[in-house]
Amino acid sequence: MNIDIISVVPELLESPLNHSIMKRAQEKGLLQVRTHNLRQWAINKHGQVDDYQYGGGAGMVMMCEPLYNAITHLQSTTTYDEIIYLTPDGATFNQSMANRLSLHQNLLFICGHYKGIDQRIRDHFVTKEISIGDYVLSGGELAAAVIVDAIGRLIPGVLNDETSALFDSFQDNLLAPPVYTRPADFNGWKVPEVLLQGDPKKVEAWRYEAALAITKAKRPDLLKEE
Amino acid sequence: MNIDIISVVPELLESPLNHSIMKRAQEKGLLQVRTHNLRQWAINKHGQVDDYQYGGGAGMVMMCEPLYNAITHLQSTTTYDEIIYLTPDGATFNQSMANRLSLHQNLLFICGHYKGIDQRIRDHFVTKEISIGDYVLSGGELAAAVIVDAIGRLIPGVLNDETSALFDSFQDNLLAPPVYTRPADFNGWKVPEVLLQGDPKKVEAWRYEAALAITKAKRPDLLKEE
Repeated sequence: MNIDIISVVPELLESPLNHSIMKRAQEKGLLQVRTHNLRQWAINKHGQVDDYQYGGGAGMVMMCEPLYNAITHLQSTTTYDEIIYLTPDGATFNQSMANRLSLHQNLLFICGHYKGIDQRIRDHFVTKEISIGDYVLSGGELAAAVIVDAIGRLIPGVLNDETSALFDSFQDNLLAPPVYTRPADFNGWKVPEVLLQGDPKKVEAWRYEAALAITKAKRPDLLKEE
Repeated sequence: MNIDIISVVPELLESPLNHSIMKRAQEKGLLQVRTHNLRQWAINKHGQVDDYQYGGGAGMVMMCEPLYNAITHLQSTTTYDEIIYLTPDGATFNQSMANRLSLHQNLLFICGHYKGIDQRIRDHFVTKEISIGDYVLSGGELAAAVIVDAIGRLIPGVLNDETSALFDSFQDNLLAPPVYTRPADFNGWKVPEVLLQGDPKKVEAWRYEAALAITKAKRPDLLKEE
């Protein structure tokens, strides 16, 4: 999978993309992530990519022209499955969206910053608008990092044990059951007996019941989804 | 505000915390973020902080002892308002949670990695469990970065224009209206006339109607909330 990311602060993405699982995915050749500084396509020598918003008000808006030039430049060599704009008013990202996006070959992410990008770029280029949650961030960069991580780890071969992601929260509309490791007794706090005995059927039943109980208590909405 | 973050890959957090608005917030002395490598409190010379899970199954679990030692060490000098564990089965983060957290003085974040942390640390130390959305990430580090960004920008003085955050999506249960900047005509794509005329009352009315229409179309659920 190839992911291109357009940003005014690409350096913000350096460490999330170059450590841990994302690093391994790229080293294995399973994922290629390239960041592009929008200022390369600035409209003048001052590196201008934003301007005051029409109608007045606080906050700058990212201009059409640099984004137009950046997108068409990248499109000249790559056909994107989706051009994704990260924005709080996009569709809310979730695990099934992650599963679907992980099947694509080429994705282009546009990170908004300041007040967002000029609406005309959204109208004429963007094919999908995604929000990672109901909150506002300084820019789309962390949202892009989150989505790259969520979909990158689903690419077969990225995680050491391919079965691992299947038991994560949300994959079956259930939250994950509690996990424990050694020692069995820490400070008098004990691991549930059934996990110590290690009867695989009993463990499985206990985990399913625990996952169901936790989901009912914390996120009953998940059980109502189809 | 002081934020301490316990992580097994603190280097992943470097660039998000040291650029753009988060950098400015720390330079202004309004926000102090310290990352702590859990391996300082490893149980042996190999730096071990995780172990296989009781009951079997793929994925490692972060052990009690290193976390216990890390948390109690940090608590010896700081009284935390909340000890927050980032986990997909936590309460879903949103803007009102961001607003509330931004009022605290001292927060401690624990980033899970692998299969998560031993349940006993959750039971005995953690005061709040937060998920940034219904999807699974490689670890809690990006979730911590997202929350630090969302709450950091709300601290008075962090954003250049204090009124700016008030008009963001979600602050009034409405998505933000479209934004436009120069030129008024780009490729034949035009800015709405009302924004060019610049009558403040008409602009305000247009923005409210646009925000309402967008929210009704994309996120009718937001309008049903109190």
